[in-house]
Amino acid sequence: MNIVLLEPEIPQNTGNIGRTCCATGTKLHLIEPMGFKINEKSVKRAGMDYWEHLDVTIYESYEDFLEKNPNAKIWMATTKGPNRYSDVKFEENDYIMFGKESAGIPEEILVENQEHAIRIPMNPQIRSLNLANSVAIVLYEALRQNDFAGMQMEGHLRKYDWK
Amino acid sequence: MNIVLLEPEIPQNTGNIGRTCCATGTKLHLIEPMGFKINEKSVKRAGMDYWEHLDVTIYESYEDFLEKNPNAKIWMATTKGPNRYSDVKFEENDYIMFGKESAGIPEEILVENQEHAIRIPMNPQIRSLNLANSVAIVLYEALRQNDFAGMQMEGHLRKYDWK
Repeated sequence: MNIVLLEPEIPQNTGNIGRTCCATGTKLHLIEPMGFKINEKSVKRAGMDYWEHLDVTIYESYEDFLEKNPNAKIWMATTKGPNRYSDVKFEENDYIMFGKESAGIPEEILVENQEHAIRIPMNPQIRSLNLANSVAIVLYEALRQNDFAGMQMEGHLRKYDWK
Repeated sequence: MNIVLLEPEIPQNTGNIGRTCCATGTKLHLIEPMGFKINEKSVKRAGMDYWEHLDVTIYESYEDFLEKNPNAKIWMATTKGPNRYSDVKFEENDYIMFGKESAGIPEEILVENQEHAIRIPMNPQIRSLNLANSVAIVLYEALRQNDFAGMQMEGHLRKYDWK
């Protein structure tokens, strides 16, 4: 699976998302400009030093990302998405894109991708969920649909003896 | 749905979890001792000032929580859980409990609740996911199984005119 962050602003969120990607064998794609330097301490701290094990690529722009991933099937997560994230069918090598914390994915990109625009249900009193939480929710639904393929998910169990 | 945090340590996580609970109409139960004061600025900042709208109860101890919620069906989230979180059947008024960031739910509680101990699949290279992300993943799976009952999830759609 692939997570794409378009111009992320807050280093702690990107660090946290890196940790989730590490935990699931997910590739992370970061599109500039970003609100921080990728080697910033706050990114690494939130990423719990797993950052070095992460499969991460940085792109100059959205166009650069599209050029280098020509066959990507991209789901666009937005509070305005017409499709519920749990109603679409994710495949193993899909891309899930999230916009910047303050503004989400720009409207000009969304209108060209309406059939791939997905939303997480939430009460309208709240503007949005935290970005890292949104990534975790959609990514784990995509993984669940694919039966957590490729993950060595039994690793932790071996460490524990149930009485 | 109900989220229970047993002795949470990091205010930003609890703030973030409060935000997720607000977004979903979920009750939050906090069990002391906690690593911060509940009115701390960092909790409110991560909760994005939604904190006042949150249905939150604080308990002196785990025993106090059990006494005041005598009929609670409690799922226990732990990296050592024998059941995958997506394989169990959540009901609308279930409780999902998470332990402190540094140690998880204590073994003496887990061994008495093995059939309700659930884990999020993750690669064994990583110790755990971030606590707020773990809550978001399990809570949204529980909500998905119940078809997001009780959420006014179409609120955001009305604000947007697709061209």
